Amino acid sequence: MTEPALTAAVIIIGNEILSGRVQDANLTHIATGLGEIGVRLVEARAIRDDEAAIIATVNELRARHTYVFTTGGIGPTHDDITSEVVGKAFGRKLILHPEAVRVLQAHYPPGALNEARLRMAHVPEGATLVDNPVSRAPGFQIENVFVLAGVPLVMRAMFDGIKGRLRHGPPVLSRAVICSLGEGTLAKDLGEIQARFPDIEIGSYPYFRAGGFGVSLVSRGTDAARLDQVTEALKAMIRSLGGDPREEQAA
Amino acid sequence: MTEPALTAAVIIIGNEILSGRVQDANLTHIATGLGEIGVRLVEARAIRDDEAAIIATVNELRARHTYVFTTGGIGPTHDDITSEVVGKAFGRKLILHPEAVRVLQAHYPPGALNEARLRMAHVPEGATLVDNPVSRAPGFQIENVFVLAGVPLVMRAMFDGIKGRLRHGPPVLSRAVICSLGEGTLAKDLGEIQARFPDIEIGSYPYFRAGGFGVSLVSRGTDAARLDQVTEALKAMIRSLGGDPREEQAA
Repeated sequence: MTEPALTAAVIIIGNEILSGRVQDANLTHIATGLGEIGVRLVEARAIRDDEAAIIATVNELRARHTYVFTTGGIGPTHDDITSEVVGKAFGRKLILHPEAVRVLQAHYPPGALNEARLRMAHVPEGATLVDNPVSRAPGFQIENVFVLAGVPLVMRAMFDGIKGRLRHGPPVLSRAVICSLGEGTLAKDLGEIQARFPDIEIGSYPYFRAGGFGVSLVSRGTDAARLDQVTEALKAMIRSLGGDPREEQAA
Repeated sequence: MTEPALTAAVIIIGNEILSGRVQDANLTHIATGLGEIGVRLVEARAIRDDEAAIIATVNELRARHTYVFTTGGIGPTHDDITSEVVGKAFGRKLILHPEAVRVLQAHYPPGALNEARLRMAHVPEGATLVDNPVSRAPGFQIENVFVLAGVPLVMRAMFDGIKGRLRHGPPVLSRAVICSLGEGTLAKDLGEIQARFPDIEIGSYPYFRAGGFGVSLVSRGTDAARLDQVTEALKAMIRSLGGDPREEQAA
């Protein structure tokens, strides 16, 4: 497979994800957005609001990837430790960012910008702000690490706002063919097609839907002509095994 | 905080999670189930169908936790490499498991148990099977690692089936109080309550719902009497700040 040069990791920070109270709703958005700009999301980790875990994870992943995105833990309460701890991971102290103060002062009614809310205007020294068009309190970028909010509405707005400043690779394109044959019926021929198209990543995903069960065959790559070829090969394979291939919009 | 002795990690294996095509629907189920039996889920990682990544992740996490659960990649197609690679992580070769063969033979019509489907009867030497009441092809346990399916319907049935054979700690109990005050208004007093209850983990989670916005304060711990005390303290705090506390069912 062609290995795109640009890679990324996501760190989902928050006890609520690992207790099962909340289902993460951010990873899919980041993953899709990175695919569009040709950045390969290689791994994602969910960790607790724990200083040692955050430092170790940020430092391991920022050394390994072009970009790291963290979500969660940048609010005003005691369990919001991400900003301070990411600063520690970089060996930088937190400073009150003048522009962040201005943004929060403009947002809150007079007198409401208390000490707790001012915590949200603190970023590690040298960080640049990430705009929050929803609830104003900003995220930040420090070197190749982007520290974003956990609330999905806010996280998405922040991420969409920074996408333009990331480096872009060839966009990852995808095509999906579905049929109602079983995976075990397709497996042998499918493996042969994958071997013939080493530059295309073919995934096989069984599904159960109201209309019955089937398999979705998803091809991903950066070359549209090669995707056309593999899609035709997959359709021919399905027909030869007695199935009825249909193309679906691939995500 | 009291640190329960039993910990776990989840490894979500599959390109489709990291491409954004599919949203993981398994982590919340495992997290909730582990909380019920007093096993603390400390981390979760999503990685690609990549041999080196799977081996490194399995070996790192199985050394660190009481249990590791993997999801995904145990079907019959070329991209289903989890069983073989987990075997490599343990330095064990794959064997055809007689009981798994029997289960699949009983499931498929005569002649349909082809070579691809027989791949699903292979497990690392010394592994014990994990029952799949949905689509029959089993998962397996090898030492402290449980290798489960990725399809949520199947994964849930497998996980619920093995829960009884896991070691149990004191169940994690939780209580939630919501109010419509802002996090920044609550933060200072909330931090003081957290300091008074170091054995209880208090999380503050802002929400936006149809009825407006607010904050959910979730307390988690193993001592019901202490949870009563912290819940009363949180309600009193909310009232003292002009809010109207309501208890919600905590997940």
